[in-house]
Amino acid sequence: MARSTGSTRLKSHPRRRLLAAMVGLLEYSDRTQAGVQKKRSGWWKLNDRQREILSSSYLERLNETSNLIKKNNQIVQQILDHSLAFYNISFPDLLRFQSAHKSDPRPIGDHTSVVQSLKHFVRDWSTAGAHERESTFPQILSTLETLCPEGGDQRARQKILVPGAGLGRLAYEISALGFTTVANEYSFYMSMAHRWVLSLADHDEGGTQHTYYPFVNWWSHQRESRNVLRGITFPEVQPSSKALERYTLLEGDFTKLFLDDGERGSYDAVVTLFFIDTARNIVEYLENIHAVLKAGGTWINLGPLLYGTGPWVEPSLGEILQMAQRLGFELLPTDGRFGADSFNGQVPEWKGKVRGCLAGYSWDKESLSRNAYEAQFWVARKVR
Amino acid sequence: MARSTGSTRLKSHPRRRLLAAMVGLLEYSDRTQAGVQKKRSGWWKLNDRQREILSSSYLERLNETSNLIKKNNQIVQQILDHSLAFYNISFPDLLRFQSAHKSDPRPIGDHTSVVQSLKHFVRDWSTAGAHERESTFPQILSTLETLCPEGGDQRARQKILVPGAGLGRLAYEISALGFTTVANEYSFYMSMAHRWVLSLADHDEGGTQHTYYPFVNWWSHQRESRNVLRGITFPEVQPSSKALERYTLLEGDFTKLFLDDGERGSYDAVVTLFFIDTARNIVEYLENIHAVLKAGGTWINLGPLLYGTGPWVEPSLGEILQMAQRLGFELLPTDGRFGADSFNGQVPEWKGKVRGCLAGYSWDKESLSRNAYEAQFWVARKVR
Repeated sequence: MARSTGSTRLKSHPRRRLLAAMVGLLEYSDRTQAGVQKKRSGWWKLNDRQREILSSSYLERLNETSNLIKKNNQIVQQILDHSLAFYNISFPDLLRFQSAHKSDPRPIGDHTSVVQSLKHFVRDWSTAGAHERESTFPQILSTLETLCPEGGDQRARQKILVPGAGLGRLAYEISALGFTTVANEYSFYMSMAHRWVLSLADHDEGGTQHTYYPFVNWWSHQRESRNVLRGITFPEVQPSSKALERYTLLEGDFTKLFLDDGERGSYDAVVTLFFIDTARNIVEYLENIHAVLKAGGTWINLGPLLYGTGPWVEPSLGEILQMAQRLGFELLPTDGRFGADSFNGQVPEWKGKVRGCLAGYSWDKESLSRNAYEAQFWVARKVR
Repeated sequence: MARSTGSTRLKSHPRRRLLAAMVGLLEYSDRTQAGVQKKRSGWWKLNDRQREILSSSYLERLNETSNLIKKNNQIVQQILDHSLAFYNISFPDLLRFQSAHKSDPRPIGDHTSVVQSLKHFVRDWSTAGAHERESTFPQILSTLETLCPEGGDQRARQKILVPGAGLGRLAYEISALGFTTVANEYSFYMSMAHRWVLSLADHDEGGTQHTYYPFVNWWSHQRESRNVLRGITFPEVQPSSKALERYTLLEGDFTKLFLDDGERGSYDAVVTLFFIDTARNIVEYLENIHAVLKAGGTWINLGPLLYGTGPWVEPSLGEILQMAQRLGFELLPTDGRFGADSFNGQVPEWKGKVRGCLAGYSWDKESLSRNAYEAQFWVARKVR
């Protein structure tokens, strides 16, 4: 992405958003250590007897946590260095930006977004996240394979768009199947980590892995104290440079990036995984999915309907399917092994087409929390 | 509760907290309707084509929602009227309090707490919440029955404390088994609804039920549009005046209410359901549970470890069990039908004692969200 030279005052300006996300990385260590310090001062609020009851091993665990955050920060700084180079931002420029926004009413970098993006290394790129991928990837990948059973050039000519690509594992797997893949991501917190993890394909041919300690921030729901100290090694699979030849990541707003004539009607398939409910305006998302597809193109969706912050409308599953039909989509039959009929077969037009499958987001298998969505799976063809 | 005459300036003063919660009820309608109005303005942010794609039935549903909120408000106003009478607050006094705090930097009544307390009618007092009660009540009630197999006077002499009693269903069921039961609740949002629903025992001998529309506030995760319009009828069981003769609700802080000599060492059992992780200082909670029990008394716990806002310490399950032992509790064997060993039998001292059972809090069975905790169940005896 070329460095823009315009004003940085507009809040949604890409360069401003990028720099803000970089400040988030820059301040990761301080803010995470501040969290540990808060836990530490909590310990000291206990009276002597209470500290004895809890035992000083609790305090020792806090010290260990603090050391692990230093290790996490080495990864964060690698992501930052890689991003500064890739986006052509100088470190002094970043520091100037940070300093110019020091007195902003709200912190300029969003610490939660940093931690969330790092957490996705577990889901997308570690063995510990395999169960989450296995509950969501196979139905998508096998549908794409069926659309184009022959590999080779045939597949490479098929263009697949994956908006909301996160840290890129699904888009990467699509690319590894031989499709030309365009990943799209709005959040620079995600795309910086995304670009860095894919860059390991080139840098680490020997297969160097990194260890991240994701649980230092989550002390609830722990069975045993030492669980929060566990490290997750990633990437479990080294991204292949060959697969990445057909792979593009486009940073930006899904509803704005694909308005050009060159992009409209140019995709063979759009794959939305845990994506459509992130929309401020879901109708616009659906219009856009429809617009970027070729005539006869395929939309594959899998995900819940947990509307994010400030959605304009919050349609039900039924309403979304009706909208898809009004836009010119026809729902296709789907395989029964991908979940039970979402409407128990009670709605004839969607019978055997729309399926619910339990998609866990209990990313920590050792945790006492068991959360899942009945994620909705459908495949639709653009018929007009 | 006698009306106190002191200053209302202290934020944690009971009268101030009570009046603030009453303001929450008073403003329920306005604030909930404002939520609908926000959804309505979201609809009008769509362009003409998008509104056509979504269909005007969406707008009609918003209007229906608005009407249901009026019905909900009839229940809320009954709770408020009952509370004003019970706590001996005059309506003009409440209005004066509301008006005096109109310009507070933060709204004086917490709307979220109002909605949460109303939502508990589903969990505690409706057929729709039966699956949640059935996954958590039987292990507690059967343990109490085993502790005192004989009913009648024998049981009535046993004093059971239920802190964090919410809307009181568990405490009520304990009382219905014949035990003398003290329910304790800190939040007036909860205890006002609690007292009102139990008052139906006297008022509604014919068995009048109320219908509440809990889903008007939750539009995410809906399969079909009309799901948000469903009503829940409650109470499914009319509270019995006879059971309530042995029943007391004490409003206030669990760590402060039971410090008197008359209370310390006076309970035969303490039952904590979804409670201990709400503590700011969980060590103090454990000390208190220990202190209020008689020698040989029993602590029954069931719940997750999802620490709330601002906890001082966040111990793991293992650390909590160790603390209990250091305080003078001995863990007792529990029945295998109440869940699998939480440590897979790997920790000899807790083997066959501490069990995890899936406790759902997906209170809306029609929803596409499937959340659950592996709630931890244990029974401990105060041995010193």
